[in-house]
Amino acid sequence: MAAAQPGLPAGAAVVRRLARGCWSAFWDYETPKVIVVRNRRLGFVHRMVQLLILLYFVWYVFIVQKSYQDSETGPESSIITKVKGITISEHKVWDVEEYVKPPEGGSVVSIITRMEVTPSQTLGTCPESIRVHSSTCHSDDDCIAGQLDMQGNGIRTGHCVPYYHGDSKTCEVSAWCPVEDGTTENQFLGKMAPNFTILIKNNIHYPKFKFSKGNIASQKNLKHCTFDQDSDPYCPIFKLGFIVEQAGENFTELAHKGGVIGVIINWDCDLDLSESECNPKYSFRRLDPKYDPASSGYNFRFAKYYKINSTTTTRTLIKAYGIRIDVIVHGQAGKFSLIPTIINLATALTSIGVGSFLCDWILLTFMNKNKLYSHKKFDKDSTFTDPKGLAQL
Amino acid sequence: MAAAQPGLPAGAAVVRRLARGCWSAFWDYETPKVIVVRNRRLGFVHRMVQLLILLYFVWYVFIVQKSYQDSETGPESSIITKVKGITISEHKVWDVEEYVKPPEGGSVVSIITRMEVTPSQTLGTCPESIRVHSSTCHSDDDCIAGQLDMQGNGIRTGHCVPYYHGDSKTCEVSAWCPVEDGTTENQFLGKMAPNFTILIKNNIHYPKFKFSKGNIASQKNLKHCTFDQDSDPYCPIFKLGFIVEQAGENFTELAHKGGVIGVIINWDCDLDLSESECNPKYSFRRLDPKYDPASSGYNFRFAKYYKINSTTTTRTLIKAYGIRIDVIVHGQAGKFSLIPTIINLATALTSIGVGSFLCDWILLTFMNKNKLYSHKKFDKDSTFTDPKGLAQL
Amino acid sequence: MAAAQPGLPAGAAVVRRLARGCWSAFWDYETPKVIVVRNRRLGFVHRMVQLLILLYFVWYVFIVQKSYQDSETGPESSIITKVKGITISEHKVWDVEEYVKPPEGGSVVSIITRMEVTPSQTLGTCPESIRVHSSTCHSDDDCIAGQLDMQGNGIRTGHCVPYYHGDSKTCEVSAWCPVEDGTTENQFLGKMAPNFTILIKNNIHYPKFKFSKGNIASQKNLKHCTFDQDSDPYCPIFKLGFIVEQAGENFTELAHKGGVIGVIINWDCDLDLSESECNPKYSFRRLDPKYDPASSGYNFRFAKYYKINSTTTTRTLIKAYGIRIDVIVHGQAGKFSLIPTIINLATALTSIGVGSFLCDWILLTFMNKNKLYSHKKFDKDSTFTDPKGLAQL
Repeated sequence: MAAAQPGLPAGAAVVRRLARGCWSAFWDYETPKVIVVRNRRLGFVHRMVQLLILLYFVWYVFIVQKSYQDSETGPESSIITKVKGITISEHKVWDVEEYVKPPEGGSVVSIITRMEVTPSQTLGTCPESIRVHSSTCHSDDDCIAGQLDMQGNGIRTGHCVPYYHGDSKTCEVSAWCPVEDGTTENQFLGKMAPNFTILIKNNIHYPKFKFSKGNIASQKNLKHCTFDQDSDPYCPIFKLGFIVEQAGENFTELAHKGGVIGVIINWDCDLDLSESECNPKYSFRRLDPKYDPASSGYNFRFAKYYKINSTTTTRTLIKAYGIRIDVIVHGQAGKFSLIPTIINLATALTSIGVGSFLCDWILLTFMNKNKLYSHKKFDKDSTFTDPKGLAQL
Repeated sequence: MAAAQPGLPAGAAVVRRLARGCWSAFWDYETPKVIVVRNRRLGFVHRMVQLLILLYFVWYVFIVQKSYQDSETGPESSIITKVKGITISEHKVWDVEEYVKPPEGGSVVSIITRMEVTPSQTLGTCPESIRVHSSTCHSDDDCIAGQLDMQGNGIRTGHCVPYYHGDSKTCEVSAWCPVEDGTTENQFLGKMAPNFTILIKNNIHYPKFKFSKGNIASQKNLKHCTFDQDSDPYCPIFKLGFIVEQAGENFTELAHKGGVIGVIINWDCDLDLSESECNPKYSFRRLDPKYDPASSGYNFRFAKYYKINSTTTTRTLIKAYGIRIDVIVHGQAGKFSLIPTIINLATALTSIGVGSFLCDWILLTFMNKNKLYSHKKFDKDSTFTDPKGLAQL
Repeated sequence: MAAAQPGLPAGAAVVRRLARGCWSAFWDYETPKVIVVRNRRLGFVHRMVQLLILLYFVWYVFIVQKSYQDSETGPESSIITKVKGITISEHKVWDVEEYVKPPEGGSVVSIITRMEVTPSQTLGTCPESIRVHSSTCHSDDDCIAGQLDMQGNGIRTGHCVPYYHGDSKTCEVSAWCPVEDGTTENQFLGKMAPNFTILIKNNIHYPKFKFSKGNIASQKNLKHCTFDQDSDPYCPIFKLGFIVEQAGENFTELAHKGGVIGVIINWDCDLDLSESECNPKYSFRRLDPKYDPASSGYNFRFAKYYKINSTTTTRTLIKAYGIRIDVIVHGQAGKFSLIPTIINLATALTSIGVGSFLCDWILLTFMNKNKLYSHKKFDKDSTFTDPKGLAQL
């Protein structure tokens, strides 16, 4: 222990000297040694390569792609729709309550354009629809009592009975009778439908940028405006005929078979600019598979239930073909942000440095003085390869 | 050909020698030559610039912005809502089935707070509503038979008939009669509505991170809890009055005119932490344009259909004003990932290198020894500009 | 002024000379001076480090993570669903119109599997449900007239009356009478429900890449196909039983208590490949909190309203338990894009440069010739630290 004591100050002194050396070295400034090559052609190539890279970054990355912005996609969105208009079929007048489903006015709304109505159905027994697979029969033996066809209308009673019309016979079923297609009547509501108007109120919010905007101008009188993308994007009242036409569809055909049309509202906003530059853009597209023979079109069934006396319930079954409007909102907002700017700037600088690689390669390969440059650039002392030679220094 | 044969081994030898040279050069290690400048001031500036850049990256980019994480926005989300409560108007009691539409309890639910009821409408003829444009008339000449006003209630018969009340006359229409506003009675359901409770079950899933969570704690007894963001975020039972108040709206006014309130559930999750740190945050915001005189408020129409005898159908038309609750879910999850970490680290290193540019510029411009440094840094041999001088070497 | 005139050309000459110097310097090519170290071990380490970094980038960043692609998440999506099938309870046959709510066939559809039916409710007075908190009573004193329990069925009249069944008494309420649970009958529709089929038509669109695709093959005959992820992903007809089984649930239990099952359609598309490589993937997951005793299951109430005479309205209240199918679409599309490619390439190059740091450190620390290397690498002229020494040069 005693021997260590005098050694300690000596060791401490060494450590202290080392630390002081390191500390002093820490504050040294190091800069790479550079060879200046006075060659106009090479300099020109070098600067041109740098210019090209710089132009690419300034023009494409920063101006076109706006890489200096932080972005957010998929805004929060709320949609209120309201359909207006009346139409007539042969016998009666139809108002909004009857042809718009569901009535609440959300982002998906169906406008019924054709109905196949089966009135006065009651629970009972009747012939199965001829359209159901293996429903035709010749005698009761063809019908198994208790059988339930998933594509059919009811449970079979085991009897074979004459069909509603024609000479054929089908199995009797216990179901809501008469079955659809037995006594169904057609009602076409599409005559005035192209003139129906749809008001689409949309409000979006980009939570990252705390930015909200709606598609209705606050001082606008909505009563007397019509939508026009170019002249008046803040009047979101669309004629149904306009929507179908913009989607490139034939109205009569669509009204007959039904279909789904998407109204796509696109909010692409550069929030570095003023709020008035952030405007909705509308586009229209058919969304259901059009050319599919088996499954094209859009229809659904609903019923109205009535009680004719205290025990018997009757219903009117409606197979409704219609135009479903799906309002889809998407968008992207961008705003200046440090992180992407710095990442892209650093990438730009690094890429400009890449130009030097190219020039070094030209310098060492193609220039007729390259041996000399090589000699100047590369300090290739032979002593490095010869450990014995080191001793002579 | 014969002459080529002896030449081939000679050429091969050259190629072999070249290849061996390249191969040997490939394993050479190259490192730039560096000048050490023993200048404390410059060294200090250099280190400070580097420190600032380092601090920016460590603190802002990595700690605040969590750039080392891979992120995913827009979780898959499923919402079940359930409204509870009863209310009374002058004459009757209303339960959930009557004032909540649609009943299925999805992410959008309307709570009816006021109704304009037009009972006992049947298909027939009656005076058009006085609110419809150009419906007032003095004689039958003012009414064109067969005319269909899109904003009206039916097809005109060509007669001018006395209005339901008052002295005015309007054109007769074939429609659901009497038309709305003829014999409409008002029913205000909003008296008890602030006490209605809404249970919002929400379940989210981030597919990229295979992370799921719900907004109900598994052992929670939901019967006796009330929502409080700070003390109990896992009790998603909200009073309607609380939601409206949080959105900054006046309940009575909202209940009268209707409106859309968004309940925004935000799941911002740092999945590097424990699951219990990933909690939902609720916010409330009015979503429909409030200050818009023409289109503010929220209402929709629906009807109940009755059969009074085998041929006549009657309906009760209801114009319902209500508070629509849109539950909107958004969120962002982040988890450590190699790629963004490496991109940001590389950017950080590159940026620290940028500090050297600054110092080089100071070195060569402001320091009084700059001529000398310049001489040292730049190996500007005159022979490079003089091709003839090369020969002398 | 006169003295300035001759000075001006002189100054101009200086400026001109300076400008010419700068201009000439601008076209100079600068390249760092490099020391070549002929050390196989160090060279090997250097190249290996570079190789590792290169491999990481080529394999992981570019091939596995596809960082050369621009990506878009959250496609625009449109969904049409259609349920088919019939089922029977003890007394009657149920068809789609009766057990599917809402009928329109959107992305959320409820298939009712059990009903608690309370028929023939009319507005009147009757005993409150025994399940309601503090509804039991012994005398009229226990019931406060005019009290409205938010969890109850109506407004109390102040009377204490015998319950529907059993010996207990509850407070009388003015409500839709009889209240639920008084005369409710159960109807289980779930017997055939596993055989119901659900057709899910889905169409997606990535607006950034202008790419659309649907989940139905155009020439497909949908009548005779069944869904199978591996053999036939373009036949989106699912049996309800299959969906429930895939979600890992017990059908009978689920049909009894109700629940929400998510059908998640995932469109992960590499748009650099052909369109046929972009296929939907289906997965199934239970979405409501399963193990929650208080709030598990899924049910909702709806009613059918009847008029039995011109003044009295009666309704059938139905508490419906069912399986709600939420179709959730998500996906990510990627396509080659210059910006992410360049950012990742620049990062790769920078990272390869990082290998040199490591080798420099090895060179200067571990190699036995490091003093010499250090001497060669660092041009540490003592004159730099001694301003007076500068004068001697």
